[in-house]
Amino acid sequence: MLSKNRIKYINALKNKKFRQAYGAFIVEGAKSVIELIQSDFTIEFILATDEFRQKYTTILSEHTPPLETVGPKDLEGIGSFQTNDSCLAVAKVKNNDLLLKSPGEYILALDDIRDPGNLGAIIRVADWYGIHKIICSKDTTDWYNPKVVAASKGSFTRVLPYYTDLYQYFGEYGSGEFIGGAFLGGSSLYEFEFPKAGGFVVMGNESNGIGEMVSKHITHQITIPRMGGAESLNVGIATAIIIDNLRRGQRL
Amino acid sequence: MLSKNRIKYINALKNKKFRQAYGAFIVEGAKSVIELIQSDFTIEFILATDEFRQKYTTILSEHTPPLETVGPKDLEGIGSFQTNDSCLAVAKVKNNDLLLKSPGEYILALDDIRDPGNLGAIIRVADWYGIHKIICSKDTTDWYNPKVVAASKGSFTRVLPYYTDLYQYFGEYGSGEFIGGAFLGGSSLYEFEFPKAGGFVVMGNESNGIGEMVSKHITHQITIPRMGGAESLNVGIATAIIIDNLRRGQRL
Repeated sequence: MLSKNRIKYINALKNKKFRQAYGAFIVEGAKSVIELIQSDFTIEFILATDEFRQKYTTILSEHTPPLETVGPKDLEGIGSFQTNDSCLAVAKVKNNDLLLKSPGEYILALDDIRDPGNLGAIIRVADWYGIHKIICSKDTTDWYNPKVVAASKGSFTRVLPYYTDLYQYFGEYGSGEFIGGAFLGGSSLYEFEFPKAGGFVVMGNESNGIGEMVSKHITHQITIPRMGGAESLNVGIATAIIIDNLRRGQRL
Repeated sequence: MLSKNRIKYINALKNKKFRQAYGAFIVEGAKSVIELIQSDFTIEFILATDEFRQKYTTILSEHTPPLETVGPKDLEGIGSFQTNDSCLAVAKVKNNDLLLKSPGEYILALDDIRDPGNLGAIIRVADWYGIHKIICSKDTTDWYNPKVVAASKGSFTRVLPYYTDLYQYFGEYGSGEFIGGAFLGGSSLYEFEFPKAGGFVVMGNESNGIGEMVSKHITHQITIPRMGGAESLNVGIATAIIIDNLRRGQRL
């Protein structure tokens, strides 16, 4: 029987203020919870149905996470989504540790990405292409928002965020580095050669692009060539296309 | 003063059955309505606030669409979305005319894309890269669903759909043509050369990929190289990456 305090705690964690106060966040859905169990996140508890327990016996007996069995109806209306999910977990937020570039590494930097679905999609794309660090401006939506976690499809376990003032970050750690930014009217992505030394790829806000201050640190403006009528691309899709071209260049 | 019949009609058009019965669909939001006005769609009516009228005087006087001025509160709760939009239009659905490939042309084919957000994103990507025709399997979500229209960000005015049985379509019109399909475990997209003669790019269902029957017509299986941990990519993002590589190859 799920206690009232637990329900209250989970509901509180839908709110950024309480996620920060408690240093914890919600993970919903079997696939994401399984990825969480196999990651190095600290799990406070998992609420799961018998069905979930049986389906994932091997993984659960290997990792023995703290699991409370609940009835299928207990989870109804508790999570953020109206899907019939068989489990929900609460895990500890990771420390917001400074992330620096290793030689040859590419890091993604996000200037004020507001939509949780977009941030989740970007995390998933980064993970697909083996990018492990994302520097987020302070106004970028919260990494541990349940919608971000859900949209990342488990990739939040393999990519690390660092929230900071992007302008200051590049001022301190960007000197001499390649800092490419997505702009309308920059060099064609197709003719662009990403340096072997690695660097940063900066994506800007959904409506306003990269801010004026952060733009001062951009060393190369990059544009995705357009051949049709659409005015713009969604930022998750634009990120995917730029990173794909980057990795393609490194492979060929 | 907005009539009750009009409100009833708009509400009915949120439902696919009534969109098909009336041959009409809803377009919401100033940007999308402006693109609609500049397109060759037949507009039944536009409901717009004074603010909208004043902001777009030039375009409105050029095109003189049938416009009813409403109070800002009249539109509240009428559309599908809870945004404070200043206008909503109802336009005639276009005939589902057979679409065939021209020499050198690339056409997108969708096998059972279910999520309206994904379909809208795919239409926007097609438009960005100058792809004007999309062949949709009968199970693909309805092109004129308000969520699809909204996610396409006006690109629905520049890309044409044709709903049909994909297996039969390729049987009749695909013979001798390049028909590339996105698969896990196909040839690397980076080493792949798309033929100059054009052809079809087929994207499959979000969970199950391209169906067994349609797969029989696929002449080339293509895979987006993965370098990290994510299991899969969203179908809108995968479409963008494949089309980007196709266009890049044609440009270089």
